[in-house]
Amino acid sequence: MSFSPLVDRLLEALRVLPGVGPRTAQRMALHLLERERDGGRRLVEVLGTALEQVGYCQRCRTLTEEPTCTLCRSARRDGALLCIVESPADMLAIEDAGGYHGHYFVLHGHLSPLDGIGPDDIGLALLDARLDEGGVEEVILATNPTVEGEATAHYIAEQIRERGLRLSRLAYGVPMGGELEYVDGGTLSRAFNGRLPFQGD
Amino acid sequence: MSFSPLVDRLLEALRVLPGVGPRTAQRMALHLLERERDGGRRLVEVLGTALEQVGYCQRCRTLTEEPTCTLCRSARRDGALLCIVESPADMLAIEDAGGYHGHYFVLHGHLSPLDGIGPDDIGLALLDARLDEGGVEEVILATNPTVEGEATAHYIAEQIRERGLRLSRLAYGVPMGGELEYVDGGTLSRAFNGRLPFQGD
Ligand SMILES: [Zn+2]
Ligand SMILES: [Zn+2]
Repeated sequence: MSFSPLVDRLLEALRVLPGVGPRTAQRMALHLLERERDGGRRLVEVLGTALEQVGYCQRCRTLTEEPTCTLCRSARRDGALLCIVESPADMLAIEDAGGYHGHYFVLHGHLSPLDGIGPDDIGLALLDARLDEGGVEEVILATNPTVEGEATAHYIAEQIRERGLRLSRLAYGVPMGGELEYVDGGTLSRAFNGRLPFQGD
Repeated sequence: MSFSPLVDRLLEALRVLPGVGPRTAQRMALHLLERERDGGRRLVEVLGTALEQVGYCQRCRTLTEEPTCTLCRSARRDGALLCIVESPADMLAIEDAGGYHGHYFVLHGHLSPLDGIGPDDIGLALLDARLDEGGVEEVILATNPTVEGEATAHYIAEQIRERGLRLSRLAYGVPMGGELEYVDGGTLSRAFNGRLPFQGD
């Protein structure tokens, strides 16, 4: 743009949003200024408040503006199950899928010694304290199926093995609805090694 | 989401942005809260300031935080040419295309009697005052090639005809780089009626 320095700054600021390039930023800025000033002001207010108040849940480290999140405070969740994920997005994906009714613990990343990210940075002291409380019977390691995610899962498993809890991980295999032709080799060989008895139903 | 009422409100607020559905809003909210708090705060500050300070240029009605926009104040633009567009986005598209070095006048919409949008709502009193100043020799009607856009162009042409200015409109025709097969019939017949002598070069 060239007619307003402030609008230029707005275009630049909007590009902090993921997937927003110059064209989309322009469309967003003009939309807000031309047609949605009220909605824009609401966004300013809510985003400002969220950035100020949203921190980590004291029990599970997911994002919340309260000391503990609504999920940790819910009486309807199964306290015997604790699912460890790398990010709140993973937690939401599992919630959206439905079927799991236990609790979560959010690492906000994975171990990465080269980047200086160690056990303290992913909240493992809090995880220990959480398990000390008792009540958890099974820990489900749901880190990403990447080298770093698996290394992190193995590290955590090692740390909590002596507690005698049931330890599990998500099943790896061919994604539902996909075509074998397009499944990568690593996933295919995992799926072969983990093959199960066929149950016609 | 279900773990934080404030994050839920943020998801809702982000959907004011054009093209942002529930999934994208979630990705944006988590990105800002997990990885880009500084960028988020900058967006809050700049968007808040823009919504408060950006209004219409007193000369051309484009968006600006100053009384007149930088383009109206530029000594390098040709004051003899005035291009009338429906929106700042149209103005930007013409600027991006390059080649035009005159001034603009932004209607912020088009005449729409059924919606109660009349000449005052699209700034025609200001356009009159602008033309009264003198200096403009040609008015280019660059409203959208839609029924409403063309009706608006005809209305404006009627209003300013007695001034004896040169009046022009953008050429209609087949878009460059497209395939004839996919050009709609209305555009094709316009292109036939407006056909020009072939100049091999
Ligand atoms: Zn929690
Ligand atoms: Zn201006």
